[in-house]
Amino acid sequence: MVTAETLWRDIEAIRQQAPLVHNITNFVVMNTTANALLSLGASPVMAHAAEEVEEMTALASALVVNIGTLSRMWIDSMALAIPVAAAKNVPIVFDPVGAGATRFRTESCLELMGLAQPTVIRGNASEIMALAGARVQTRGVDSGAEVSDAQVAARQLACQWRCVVVVSGASDLITDGETTWWVDNGHVMMPRVTGLGCTASALVGAFCAVNDQPLQAATQAMLTLGICGELAAEKSSGPGSLQVALLDALYGLSLEQVGARLKCRCPA
Amino acid sequence: MVTAETLWRDIEAIRQQAPLVHNITNFVVMNTTANALLSLGASPVMAHAAEEVEEMTALASALVVNIGTLSRMWIDSMALAIPVAAAKNVPIVFDPVGAGATRFRTESCLELMGLAQPTVIRGNASEIMALAGARVQTRGVDSGAEVSDAQVAARQLACQWRCVVVVSGASDLITDGETTWWVDNGHVMMPRVTGLGCTASALVGAFCAVNDQPLQAATQAMLTLGICGELAAEKSSGPGSLQVALLDALYGLSLEQVGARLKCRCPA
Amino acid sequence: MVTAETLWRDIEAIRQQAPLVHNITNFVVMNTTANALLSLGASPVMAHAAEEVEEMTALASALVVNIGTLSRMWIDSMALAIPVAAAKNVPIVFDPVGAGATRFRTESCLELMGLAQPTVIRGNASEIMALAGARVQTRGVDSGAEVSDAQVAARQLACQWRCVVVVSGASDLITDGETTWWVDNGHVMMPRVTGLGCTASALVGAFCAVNDQPLQAATQAMLTLGICGELAAEKSSGPGSLQVALLDALYGLSLEQVGARLKCRCPA
Repeated sequence: MVTAETLWRDIEAIRQQAPLVHNITNFVVMNTTANALLSLGASPVMAHAAEEVEEMTALASALVVNIGTLSRMWIDSMALAIPVAAAKNVPIVFDPVGAGATRFRTESCLELMGLAQPTVIRGNASEIMALAGARVQTRGVDSGAEVSDAQVAARQLACQWRCVVVVSGASDLITDGETTWWVDNGHVMMPRVTGLGCTASALVGAFCAVNDQPLQAATQAMLTLGICGELAAEKSSGPGSLQVALLDALYGLSLEQVGARLKCRCPA
Repeated sequence: MVTAETLWRDIEAIRQQAPLVHNITNFVVMNTTANALLSLGASPVMAHAAEEVEEMTALASALVVNIGTLSRMWIDSMALAIPVAAAKNVPIVFDPVGAGATRFRTESCLELMGLAQPTVIRGNASEIMALAGARVQTRGVDSGAEVSDAQVAARQLACQWRCVVVVSGASDLITDGETTWWVDNGHVMMPRVTGLGCTASALVGAFCAVNDQPLQAATQAMLTLGICGELAAEKSSGPGSLQVALLDALYGLSLEQVGARLKCRCPA
Repeated sequence: MVTAETLWRDIEAIRQQAPLVHNITNFVVMNTTANALLSLGASPVMAHAAEEVEEMTALASALVVNIGTLSRMWIDSMALAIPVAAAKNVPIVFDPVGAGATRFRTESCLELMGLAQPTVIRGNASEIMALAGARVQTRGVDSGAEVSDAQVAARQLACQWRCVVVVSGASDLITDGETTWWVDNGHVMMPRVTGLGCTASALVGAFCAVNDQPLQAATQAMLTLGICGELAAEKSSGPGSLQVALLDALYGLSLEQVGARLKCRCPA
């Protein structure tokens, strides 16, 4: 079940516990990812050196792996961190940025996922389709497909890797292969801010850090981002002010706002 | 010719086509560059790994190479991408950040430019003078000279490399060695925001993606940034809010605003 | 002595001289660090390649070394820059981000500090305690201790390395081992913006560039950040708008604002 109350319980847990979220992520979004986690109430850390990455992951309550500006050095770092997280039952969120755009990205994803089952995979429609082996071209880091096109691929991927798969887009789909939730919150201006998908993955990490039901945690993370995006859009006159207001909204989010806006469904 | 109408035609083309602009750029500005391109309507991608950089460039409608936080690995990446762009007729924008400050920067620029003729080179006055072989000291990444000092160097560089050269500053100079345009839009607070020169180069990339006349495209990109900078400054109380409002202005820019503000000249 | 007048003298010197501040810093904060320095009136440069880092440091008026997203390559770069700064009497500010969180961080700090005495070390309480050899766990990059816990460690570290040590937190402590200043400016929302500690270190660099008394310079830098944080918080509705308003406040800071708000003490 996902309700305003279950969502709010996670928000309060994050604000009280300030879980350490270890991000091995891309250069473009490191700053905004850290800020989104801090605004939500979590404690972000970015660290990747071979000399310390395992030690850092072992301290963390969630590991978020994002291949945005990938190179061999980063894959090696991720390959050290992922088994530590798996061994310590630290939830792993995997963000396959640009999978399907180049062979290197698709193959690196499969290599990393092979090291340990992710808890949650979050991507856009064409990234998820590429991971599931569907024929699709990711356009740089933008999706070349709609969320609805990725439904079968998402369920298949969830079953294959025994994990939760999130496909984000105009409506977000969250599935464990059996149960599928749809989140209808969000705003059309959000794709005009770079890295809000990466922010989504980081928030999923924070929710998984305090909630051991990944399907519920991931759905609640996507609801939180969507609701805060709506609140932000109402105060914004473009993507610049939207990014700023989004951080403010994450920081100030109230149960009332969640209750009034939450739009999710779980069709039978 | 450059008019509000020719500029607007490019803006509409960018908004409709969302051209993929491949940026190999520096750590400082990756986020703001991506956001500026998204706000304008283009689709940015940042990717640099040897394993994929050629494949990504081949997908792109423009390649923007920026040496801001240079190291050997990045030069190698740029050296793979540039010939692909040249072979595929993908326009190449080259931003020689800090040329003239250290020998490494000046020499790396010449090495990279030697791989394929850039479509447009955009820098500040002392960077352009350094590339043209003039004696000048760049102060870190800030110009040690005025745009007017760089006029001869800019024309010489444009002729030597058969490309368009943009010198940005209080007024911007855009030349192909024969015809020279000046853009008088902009605001004094803009140099207090880091990386707006890099943003200018990225916007030049987006305009070149939809307009095969580089002199006109580059002039129109500089006008767009200057006009949006003015619109942003009117809503700002400092460099922080200027950066935010600039993205909003790029997103919301209208033909009316362009028509009312455009200030460029092409002295005979 | 530290007064509104001594602080203002430094601000005016920075605005007039625009000292070049060379930052070898982490991916998360490069953009916001550069913007804070620009808003204050300094001229930031980020450069780290082995081929040029010494040449760049030799041009600078201050060197800021920050180990936030450390890896071997960055240590090597810092190890080239630090001796150049020492030889040229360029003040060195050292920011031991995450010292105490992993062995790699603590050891790298001691390795780098061993190359040349820093002018100022700035960290949070547990980072400073870790460098002084106290038993403490840094939680990722967040302090696991209060500033008051770090008083003895800070004085000891200052004596050991003959430098100024800044411990930032709710109140900031600045000590040369003999004299200790406390700065009570700031706002509770500031730790919810990523990298304001890194910004503090960069501002200390700018003040040291124009003031050869490091204890006074560092205290004045912390006052400036704290006062601007307060001014920004009054105009903000969360951490997103706080970051933006902080840059505006640094840019617009007036002697009147400093005089009305400055809160520091030097208990005998």
